[in-house]
Amino acid sequence: MKIISGIVLITMLSISINVPAQYQPSWESLDKRPVPEWWRDAKFGIFIHWGLYAVPAYAPTTEVKGIYDKYAEHYENKLLSKNELFINHHQKYYGNNFTYQDFAPMFKAEYFNPDKWADLIQRSGAKYVVLTSKHHDGFCLWPSKESPKWNSVAIGPHRDIIAELSSSVRNKGLHMGLYYSLLEWNNPLYTPATMNKWVDEHMIPQMKDLVTSYKPEVIFADGEWDYTSDQFKSAEFLAWLYNESPVKQTVVVNDRWGKETRSKHGGYYTTEYDVVHNGKGIAEKSEHPWEESRGIGMSYGYNQFETADDYSSSKKIIDLLINKVGNGGNLLLNIGPDANGLIPVVMQERLLNIGEWLKVNGEAIYGSSAWEKRPQSSEKSVFFTTNQNQLYVICTKWPDKPITIKGIKKVGKVSMIGVNNTIKKSFKGNSLTIIPPVLNPGNLPCEYAWVFKVEGFVSM
Amino acid sequence: MKIISGIVLITMLSISINVPAQYQPSWESLDKRPVPEWWRDAKFGIFIHWGLYAVPAYAPTTEVKGIYDKYAEHYENKLLSKNELFINHHQKYYGNNFTYQDFAPMFKAEYFNPDKWADLIQRSGAKYVVLTSKHHDGFCLWPSKESPKWNSVAIGPHRDIIAELSSSVRNKGLHMGLYYSLLEWNNPLYTPATMNKWVDEHMIPQMKDLVTSYKPEVIFADGEWDYTSDQFKSAEFLAWLYNESPVKQTVVVNDRWGKETRSKHGGYYTTEYDVVHNGKGIAEKSEHPWEESRGIGMSYGYNQFETADDYSSSKKIIDLLINKVGNGGNLLLNIGPDANGLIPVVMQERLLNIGEWLKVNGEAIYGSSAWEKRPQSSEKSVFFTTNQNQLYVICTKWPDKPITIKGIKKVGKVSMIGVNNTIKKSFKGNSLTIIPPVLNPGNLPCEYAWVFKVEGFVSM
Amino acid sequence: MKIISGIVLITMLSISINVPAQYQPSWESLDKRPVPEWWRDAKFGIFIHWGLYAVPAYAPTTEVKGIYDKYAEHYENKLLSKNELFINHHQKYYGNNFTYQDFAPMFKAEYFNPDKWADLIQRSGAKYVVLTSKHHDGFCLWPSKESPKWNSVAIGPHRDIIAELSSSVRNKGLHMGLYYSLLEWNNPLYTPATMNKWVDEHMIPQMKDLVTSYKPEVIFADGEWDYTSDQFKSAEFLAWLYNESPVKQTVVVNDRWGKETRSKHGGYYTTEYDVVHNGKGIAEKSEHPWEESRGIGMSYGYNQFETADDYSSSKKIIDLLINKVGNGGNLLLNIGPDANGLIPVVMQERLLNIGEWLKVNGEAIYGSSAWEKRPQSSEKSVFFTTNQNQLYVICTKWPDKPITIKGIKKVGKVSMIGVNNTIKKSFKGNSLTIIPPVLNPGNLPCEYAWVFKVEGFVSM
Amino acid sequence: MKIISGIVLITMLSISINVPAQYQPSWESLDKRPVPEWWRDAKFGIFIHWGLYAVPAYAPTTEVKGIYDKYAEHYENKLLSKNELFINHHQKYYGNNFTYQDFAPMFKAEYFNPDKWADLIQRSGAKYVVLTSKHHDGFCLWPSKESPKWNSVAIGPHRDIIAELSSSVRNKGLHMGLYYSLLEWNNPLYTPATMNKWVDEHMIPQMKDLVTSYKPEVIFADGEWDYTSDQFKSAEFLAWLYNESPVKQTVVVNDRWGKETRSKHGGYYTTEYDVVHNGKGIAEKSEHPWEESRGIGMSYGYNQFETADDYSSSKKIIDLLINKVGNGGNLLLNIGPDANGLIPVVMQERLLNIGEWLKVNGEAIYGSSAWEKRPQSSEKSVFFTTNQNQLYVICTKWPDKPITIKGIKKVGKVSMIGVNNTIKKSFKGNSLTIIPPVLNPGNLPCEYAWVFKVEGFVSM
Repeated sequence: MKIISGIVLITMLSISINVPAQYQPSWESLDKRPVPEWWRDAKFGIFIHWGLYAVPAYAPTTEVKGIYDKYAEHYENKLLSKNELFINHHQKYYGNNFTYQDFAPMFKAEYFNPDKWADLIQRSGAKYVVLTSKHHDGFCLWPSKESPKWNSVAIGPHRDIIAELSSSVRNKGLHMGLYYSLLEWNNPLYTPATMNKWVDEHMIPQMKDLVTSYKPEVIFADGEWDYTSDQFKSAEFLAWLYNESPVKQTVVVNDRWGKETRSKHGGYYTTEYDVVHNGKGIAEKSEHPWEESRGIGMSYGYNQFETADDYSSSKKIIDLLINKVGNGGNLLLNIGPDANGLIPVVMQERLLNIGEWLKVNGEAIYGSSAWEKRPQSSEKSVFFTTNQNQLYVICTKWPDKPITIKGIKKVGKVSMIGVNNTIKKSFKGNSLTIIPPVLNPGNLPCEYAWVFKVEGFVSM
Repeated sequence: MKIISGIVLITMLSISINVPAQYQPSWESLDKRPVPEWWRDAKFGIFIHWGLYAVPAYAPTTEVKGIYDKYAEHYENKLLSKNELFINHHQKYYGNNFTYQDFAPMFKAEYFNPDKWADLIQRSGAKYVVLTSKHHDGFCLWPSKESPKWNSVAIGPHRDIIAELSSSVRNKGLHMGLYYSLLEWNNPLYTPATMNKWVDEHMIPQMKDLVTSYKPEVIFADGEWDYTSDQFKSAEFLAWLYNESPVKQTVVVNDRWGKETRSKHGGYYTTEYDVVHNGKGIAEKSEHPWEESRGIGMSYGYNQFETADDYSSSKKIIDLLINKVGNGGNLLLNIGPDANGLIPVVMQERLLNIGEWLKVNGEAIYGSSAWEKRPQSSEKSVFFTTNQNQLYVICTKWPDKPITIKGIKKVGKVSMIGVNNTIKKSFKGNSLTIIPPVLNPGNLPCEYAWVFKVEGFVSM
Repeated sequence: MKIISGIVLITMLSISINVPAQYQPSWESLDKRPVPEWWRDAKFGIFIHWGLYAVPAYAPTTEVKGIYDKYAEHYENKLLSKNELFINHHQKYYGNNFTYQDFAPMFKAEYFNPDKWADLIQRSGAKYVVLTSKHHDGFCLWPSKESPKWNSVAIGPHRDIIAELSSSVRNKGLHMGLYYSLLEWNNPLYTPATMNKWVDEHMIPQMKDLVTSYKPEVIFADGEWDYTSDQFKSAEFLAWLYNESPVKQTVVVNDRWGKETRSKHGGYYTTEYDVVHNGKGIAEKSEHPWEESRGIGMSYGYNQFETADDYSSSKKIIDLLINKVGNGGNLLLNIGPDANGLIPVVMQERLLNIGEWLKVNGEAIYGSSAWEKRPQSSEKSVFFTTNQNQLYVICTKWPDKPITIKGIKKVGKVSMIGVNNTIKKSFKGNSLTIIPPVLNPGNLPCEYAWVFKVEGFVSM
Repeated sequence: MKIISGIVLITMLSISINVPAQYQPSWESLDKRPVPEWWRDAKFGIFIHWGLYAVPAYAPTTEVKGIYDKYAEHYENKLLSKNELFINHHQKYYGNNFTYQDFAPMFKAEYFNPDKWADLIQRSGAKYVVLTSKHHDGFCLWPSKESPKWNSVAIGPHRDIIAELSSSVRNKGLHMGLYYSLLEWNNPLYTPATMNKWVDEHMIPQMKDLVTSYKPEVIFADGEWDYTSDQFKSAEFLAWLYNESPVKQTVVVNDRWGKETRSKHGGYYTTEYDVVHNGKGIAEKSEHPWEESRGIGMSYGYNQFETADDYSSSKKIIDLLINKVGNGGNLLLNIGPDANGLIPVVMQERLLNIGEWLKVNGEAIYGSSAWEKRPQSSEKSVFFTTNQNQLYVICTKWPDKPITIKGIKKVGKVSMIGVNNTIKKSFKGNSLTIIPPVLNPGNLPCEYAWVFKVEGFVSM
């Protein structure tokens, strides 16, 4: 027995030597981990909010006060908190003896075709997907052991949505990520008195199950505002994730791990409809990687009552992408499929339009960085990205006047992406002036926004 | 009076001071607790199996092999174990993509009127009620914290069935009890590997919640066959129940607390359609309190496909009651309400017929004991009960010949309950011979069975 | 061509000679047709009310004022006429935007097994069946061309109920009949202004379709109270039915053919829960063939809210049968299957009990006649039927005293059906006195009612 | 002018005095009636296909052979005719025992808001609406007496859709019209043998009911291909419509009144996805008023499976409108609301985009005429309309070269609508040459297409 245990000892030692626990379960240690390169290069991802809320698919679009009031995915909470607009809608269309849980069998997802979703997303030019594995209602899109009667295999679709979509997304060469809510509105275990049990018995097991079963490359935590990260034991989880999990090399996480962590700890920082929830500083000015998420309309979860007036145009969303990337961020654009599993055509169209634009201009986006010397108070229709020796000058309005850019040490050839003719320019005193070409609607390289590519670029 | 109240005071003080743990968490100790008197006197109770299985309300009534195959409440398990008859029925009427859980929103209980149920039960002459708080499918008829999405408040009825029925039953002066299944077929935590967690986190908390919230006077445990009582920590639970719980004085339990306990440990012993499941001995011969339970038809849970041929007649059930009580047992007769909350009329009628019979002959049943000297191989249509100085001779066939009863030391007057005329008798050599009266269908005291009451009775 | 037309002429003459149009379209002529023998001998039939009203299956059982208020099959009309009890029930359980027509897809009849129905009916001892082909709601249980979107093949069951049940009933050797409502509550064509069109385009075509397609041997017309038989053109229809239809030899009809016809014209006269609706005379005193119909409970259509207290006992129904037959009538006992196609067990049980009684005592019922000299104010528990040289004395209470019967010219042997011993009797002065035997519950020939058979009987 | 108005006065007087039947029930007479001016000026209408087919909302979008195979509104017929794709879809999602009629209660229209529909349509710039009052499935969107159980008041929405929408549309100052199908696929009366009855009892009464109840200003007949207009008695109906009906002055009808009438008789001629169904000539070359109708996607009725790839872009639809109007036609652009009553956002967006374009360029469309001298083989991106002394030159591609137009006698000022600068031109030898302005995406007057307005125009 001695010999055998000796061997075991050696093996264990060799493990502990070769794969040291790099990260300690403390923010000090965890915050040192860089956000993986693949995500910083990707720039554009698709968020998917899908769950029972797609059945009522309701939120008011007028008379809205707060940012959350227009979120269809908050339907359950609005009923629980007696929001008048939601209560009225619910009683009118579902009656008095009908609860949120009764939507479960109606969330059939019968036309859900993950390959079609993945194909659409690929055509959009997005490089990663983040699906709500579980939103604040606690309904799981996988057969979670900790939620045995409240998941998409047990009731409703009777399918493992995460498994199916992950496979299709990866088949298209895209990265797959998962959103996960730390809180659940209507779970009797989610109380201050039982928080320890909640975390140990429910939340951490679920998250580890997700990671080991589906190997997500993004974990978008949320619902972190009620308790500190200490209470959620977030640092312990992240240490495990970074040190031991099957995705330890590639996984990207966000900053929502406890009520004190946004824009402070974790992985990338997050904004939502341009808001940083804790109000402390603006992510866009941060040097830290960050990401804006928002819906194409006013809601993340599908709201069937949103009209054409409530949806952002393709133009507006492409401007948004340019703005975020030009300021160092990523854009995680949300789509909300309907309860049958179909993606509303208006959302499809926006994705395809972005894809058409990126097909022409993708080199100005993917793998780029914000230009450190970008003017802080520049005209709001000109944005800048850099990539090695290129500077990209992205115009969200057609430039009908010369554009002058300061802070440049050296430049080479200037062109407009998609246009053959060389662009006239002048360069003196660290200032580059670009003379826009004369084009008309009949010979534009693309719609929406136009990019000048400055080669041989050296910043000051 | 002072002295007496002084004693009472002292007693109470001693309780509040000492609160000695009377019972130890061992069978040796627990088995010493006598079954409370109220239950031994009650003799007749109503079992209620009600749950999601009332939606499909199916079990085969022919081609049935085992005793369980005809139980509609086993529907989920029959699907899980691929029973051909159940699978065929399910696919034909519900399709392929419809699981047992999908029945939850269809279990609406919309016409459930607990006062009407309680009134009917009172009219049946039963003295206690035992409701399935949770059957093997795990669906709870109360808002169990351990089963947050799988209970009658969360989905389906949206009502606390236990609370409502307990209140109505008690308003009628009856005792309220609860059935509870230790196992759950389709719970991912119910595995050998996680049994400890199952018991500590799920089962014991649920049972304690039931006891403290609803104060049941009967706990009919079931689903105990997979693990030992040690694994279920049943003795610990019962020690708490007997020593500390709010029903410690009055609660009655049965013998299903682990795979080794039937007819051996716990409270009263149980039979089911006359079968003792572990096959070790026959409860009816036991000196120990015992109880037979069965449905009026072939199933406990409602089976809408049972026909008049499948239901026991009132006559047959009254004979059964007499047989069981005459052999020292209780009868827990089951009814299975439909998914809307209505009790099928055929079941109502049986209950009312029993009530009519008991209204006349109740004194031979309630509070009685089996006569120790009853003939072991007596004619099967004559049964005996005693109550203080009375012997009751209960005839399930009309006695058209003199009845001779041995083993009697002394007798007084003999009469037939409900008939004015005195009955002729002779008594010699410890033998009593009763000469039945001449009656015709027009002047019988009751239907179904007739009782001779022997006063001044002393057994040998 | 001359020769051929000669032959044709001869053939036509031979037809016109042999099969003369016996009946004219006038009551004077039609009323001369005798009610076919088979029906007079049958005595006992089963009425079946089945339709959409089996979905709500509601009528109040208390607070009921008129005879119709307890009819579940009147649900639609009660909504249309704003009956408070029905409206409240409907709004509570189905909401405001749910009409009677919305019940159609819920009337699935998925467990409807016509062979099982027919078998049950055969076991009841009934000799004929009358099914509601179309009730006042206009919903047809066959694919009526005149009601293309409102029949059981188009919606709901998607089955031809009449075809299926007719076949099964006939396979059991029973006669098949159809109920048909002349009115429809909610049909825009059923108005005074369009009555002619109603009759010519809708009603008569439907009735002829029924007769030619399904060859019913009973036509139980109903809903005749709004218009005269002239307006309904009933005489024309009956002349066709009697002279030309495929059932002209055997068909039996009732007396509901216009608001003036009950107890006056047509075939047999009808009562309903003992009431003759036009109040003119009592059918039971009529020499004319008549029939009582009623439900086993308070309603014809299934009312799931009727309790055991609302159902007539087997005893009561057998008494009813004896009473009606003893007074020259038939009994058409109604059953109301549920919306799934199952016959409630309480109804099954009543039918089987009647069947058991008729198995013993059928000779006193089938083929019998009321005794013309029966005492008009006899004790209500003794009834009489005759059949050739037999007199049947039917006692609905056990006879514990001698029975004296006047008006007899001659008698032979007297016996009790099902009992071996000869019965003592005396006969003098046209009076027969029967001395009942001494029997007890252990040796009775049957339950419910007992029959003395007087052979060699000649009435005065 | 005085004299002319005098004549008009006299004519009007004569109408009010004599009311002579101006039109005879013959095509010769009926075809003389001019298509009312309002419709010829309107140019652009919105077609609405809405009915039960919006529940399955299915048609294949690939593997399609014929023009009708992609029409979701043909769902019932595809089932009846055993189309494999439809049958497979139906069985998979609705099962075997589910018919087209079973969709009726699922067509709830619960969010139908006619004011919102009308507002959207007004914003689209359309001047009239044509709603399917009844499609080939026979389901009526009003409470038709001839279809008592198969209309939107009886089942499904429980609303009079025509009444509600007509009111909202008229409140917006738009014209309201109705589509009506002469045939019904699944009506037992629609057979050669019963065609006379069909027309007299069903079809004509329904059409007259529609006209008198809702006063539609367009009647778009359809489903005329099985029988001749003689069999349908179309001429009689139209004579009544033109002479006596409440809309005799303003009503516009199309050319689908019998299998021989398309592009030949009735009111305006029709094309459908550019096809003239009888193949006799091309409507676009006709001097007769005509109208193209089509969906925004591949179907008229809502097909939830159409993707962004299946919908025409706003650009494509605006080009279509220009093409049709430039060739003398109207465009009746179809939208297919979903079963809840919501108009898919992609359709809303198309309508709003058209409205934006028309807001700028409407003067080139409304009230205009095709220019008789328009070049027959002109470049396909330049179209012409005239209005009094204006010629409108509509370019669906940006004109980057001078445009030369022949066949002009005289011209005045030339401008581009929405642009301030005067446009350079030259005019000689009846040829006008327009020099397009230099504009870029930042200063265009509109998207999609651009209009030169030539004032003082006199055609040769």
